[in-house]
Amino acid sequence: MYGDTRRNLTMLTDFYELTMMNGFLSSKTARKIAYFDLFFRRVPDGGGFALAAGLEQLIEYLKTLQFTEDDIEYLRGRKLFSTEFLKFLKNFRFTCDVWAIPEGTPIFPQEPVVTVRGPVIEAQLIETMALIIINHQSLIATKTNRVVRAAAGRSVMEFGSRRAQGFDGAVLGARAAYIGGADATACTMADRNFGVPAAGTMAHSWVQMFDSEYDAFSAYAGTYPQNCLLLVDTYNVLKSGVPNAIRVFNEKVVSRGFRPAGIRIDSGDITYLSLKARAMLDAAGFSDCKIVASNSLDEYIIRDMIIQGAKIDSFGVGERLITAASDPVFGGVYKLVAVEENGQIVPKVKLSENVSKLTLPCYKKPWRLYDRASGMAIADVITLADEEIDPQKPYELFDPDHVWKRKTVTGFTARSLQVPIFKGGECVYKSPLTEEIKAYAAKELKKLWDEVKRFENPHKYYVDLSPRLWEKRNTLLGELYARFE
Amino acid sequence: MYGDTRRNLTMLTDFYELTMMNGFLSSKTARKIAYFDLFFRRVPDGGGFALAAGLEQLIEYLKTLQFTEDDIEYLRGRKLFSTEFLKFLKNFRFTCDVWAIPEGTPIFPQEPVVTVRGPVIEAQLIETMALIIINHQSLIATKTNRVVRAAAGRSVMEFGSRRAQGFDGAVLGARAAYIGGADATACTMADRNFGVPAAGTMAHSWVQMFDSEYDAFSAYAGTYPQNCLLLVDTYNVLKSGVPNAIRVFNEKVVSRGFRPAGIRIDSGDITYLSLKARAMLDAAGFSDCKIVASNSLDEYIIRDMIIQGAKIDSFGVGERLITAASDPVFGGVYKLVAVEENGQIVPKVKLSENVSKLTLPCYKKPWRLYDRASGMAIADVITLADEEIDPQKPYELFDPDHVWKRKTVTGFTARSLQVPIFKGGECVYKSPLTEEIKAYAAKELKKLWDEVKRFENPHKYYVDLSPRLWEKRNTLLGELYARFE
Repeated sequence: MYGDTRRNLTMLTDFYELTMMNGFLSSKTARKIAYFDLFFRRVPDGGGFALAAGLEQLIEYLKTLQFTEDDIEYLRGRKLFSTEFLKFLKNFRFTCDVWAIPEGTPIFPQEPVVTVRGPVIEAQLIETMALIIINHQSLIATKTNRVVRAAAGRSVMEFGSRRAQGFDGAVLGARAAYIGGADATACTMADRNFGVPAAGTMAHSWVQMFDSEYDAFSAYAGTYPQNCLLLVDTYNVLKSGVPNAIRVFNEKVVSRGFRPAGIRIDSGDITYLSLKARAMLDAAGFSDCKIVASNSLDEYIIRDMIIQGAKIDSFGVGERLITAASDPVFGGVYKLVAVEENGQIVPKVKLSENVSKLTLPCYKKPWRLYDRASGMAIADVITLADEEIDPQKPYELFDPDHVWKRKTVTGFTARSLQVPIFKGGECVYKSPLTEEIKAYAAKELKKLWDEVKRFENPHKYYVDLSPRLWEKRNTLLGELYARFE
Repeated sequence: MYGDTRRNLTMLTDFYELTMMNGFLSSKTARKIAYFDLFFRRVPDGGGFALAAGLEQLIEYLKTLQFTEDDIEYLRGRKLFSTEFLKFLKNFRFTCDVWAIPEGTPIFPQEPVVTVRGPVIEAQLIETMALIIINHQSLIATKTNRVVRAAAGRSVMEFGSRRAQGFDGAVLGARAAYIGGADATACTMADRNFGVPAAGTMAHSWVQMFDSEYDAFSAYAGTYPQNCLLLVDTYNVLKSGVPNAIRVFNEKVVSRGFRPAGIRIDSGDITYLSLKARAMLDAAGFSDCKIVASNSLDEYIIRDMIIQGAKIDSFGVGERLITAASDPVFGGVYKLVAVEENGQIVPKVKLSENVSKLTLPCYKKPWRLYDRASGMAIADVITLADEEIDPQKPYELFDPDHVWKRKTVTGFTARSLQVPIFKGGECVYKSPLTEEIKAYAAKELKKLWDEVKRFENPHKYYVDLSPRLWEKRNTLLGELYARFE
């Protein structure tokens, strides 16, 4: 699907991945099998959940991993790397196993979204790109879904390309926004590359290019009678824009057997203007003519507009969506959780100076338990990779931080959230179409209680640990902690 | 310089640019000569100035503008565009004139950073990409300079790739950060493509891969005795990390005739830890060993650390810099300001429902006046394009909003800020090397008074209008306003 934008992004990696790789080779640890988890610690904006996105681009990246002669020459010029290492890069091939939670799945802090198993020299390299991709698209999908929830059934269009942080910020941001629930984008490339429907009609410059607003609308309707949506705020919405639009709808649209598509308001008190414009359009017989609003919108402004009775059918949301402006960082991390020693999987942990930066050791699997009767999600559980959850037996959940909080569930189904993506470097997964991911996300979101979807003080959805994992983590942390006290 | 990442980004354009282009062609306005200004309205973070960045990428984009067969087939499939238009796209060539303020120049609200003159069908198309590029890189250069000012002479390294909003967010963000004053980046691709020095040594995973922290440090020093910088917070900074580092510096670095490069602290109370670590290193004879700090830093945290006496030589600044997290949108816009009619340049203005969204009409030039004795910038003036400012004569500045505020300056030099970039579609400008842009930015920033560089309540640097431009704008706005009152 990437078309002419397919790129070799192998060198888009933090320099320390390369110094470590060279070091692993020198110290004979390069082929040691390592397990890395990609997870996040906090939902942006204080939300109750995030939406996973970006896996398709991660797969593309892993498939195209390759160091070119130019890359190797550049590295040789840095005078830090051994000849053996540069030769290794020349023949570099990705041979790891990768598992991931599919795109569009609601995800929660601490659970492994992506797990990578393979020689540490390979598994280390991909840290930077795995994080860029998953962090960026999960951020935008999560933010967009907030906007979509605020719009309460009205249409949301992603209009932010011009304020995106770079080209992929625009294109892949539009892809993530679609997964998160936007209905359309302004970004043409996102349509061509990913099938995200692109929409748009005119800027103020269109109106200014003609001698009058009426002439401009008339010319537009002449070209697009079947899709006539007019921007009405270049001069004055109620005294000029809407009256000219109504006149042109009659003269150039209805007269040719079409119905007007809509008007767009991009400045002023949009709630007030929408009410007045709605009345004018209705009185003119255009109650089917849509009103589109834009202008630095976000979930809070949209919610307020709706509470105040704004007559808006569709919201064009730009800079605050495409940059997730209210909280523009998705803090995913990629951490070593285990290594294989003599055929045994040995868990690894990081103590750190902040409790919040502790890692969860061991090769693990995330599960989601659903109530069998209602289909609603009950909680997630992280287990060791060799554990199974048997839905035929009652399962006791407990809060890993407050272990006296316990609850036994019955009548549930258990879903192992990760699916295999690469086996020994071969891709074994086919990414769904973007629209399929969007539909899947909408379906999965219906399985979360409304309490988890609130903007303020959302209900905490539990991500519990299996008793065996909980024990292992505590033993490991206790041993380490004791060494430094 | 783009190397293997050169891409055709022609389709990265808002869909409405294409519907307008098709409409211009249908309504016989396509070849009308239009003037567009790219400008911004507000400095992010309440700052006193912004730094222009991105021109090199804008030039690359304009040079590679071309619709492929695939692009045209995609557009044909949308069933909105005329056959004439699709044929036009097939032969599309960019023939406009472009002027711009060079990268690294401090810029202020309202002044035209880029001006484009040419057939409206071409000048309209490039709106989206011109904005993405200039908005993104100016945002990051401006933010980085805040961080650099807070660091007060200490080194700042851009460490944010993994939290960047997409691939270009990382690579071009690192480029912009370098222009804004960062000394280095973690992003390898930014080094290879743009010569931004890439730096980095190890992650926590390096330490975890070995049986002990000592073994990990020892292996690293064995490979890199000449560049040995150790991450000391995997377990416990003062009880394990620093003692192990000192031991390894002695055993593996000094013993081989090198000096240790440094230690990095990535968690905990970094100010406190830096003071203790500094004392331990000094006592061990390593007063030349640098201390690097990282962990969600920004300009405010860095300023606080320095006030509290932290012993930090270098700051690694990640997510909050690469996303400009405190204010992640640079609100540049691209507006029609004039058209040519029968050989005359006719100014165009947009009234809008918000005074803040008014545009400044006319084909214009921005100037900067410098005090001849001190070399310091006095104010900027926007004039009509055919005006000159004669530094031999006194020049009366006045505030365009509060016209009684007047000041006559003498003994100044006047610099026309824009330079020609394209003439009739041919590039007439050679972008400087990134390091040259960085040096130029540092030089130009010295010409701004410290009062303009404050974080809180910076002095307002004036951008005045020439009397002729002021008159024209008011006449035009007055005429329009009267029509709707």
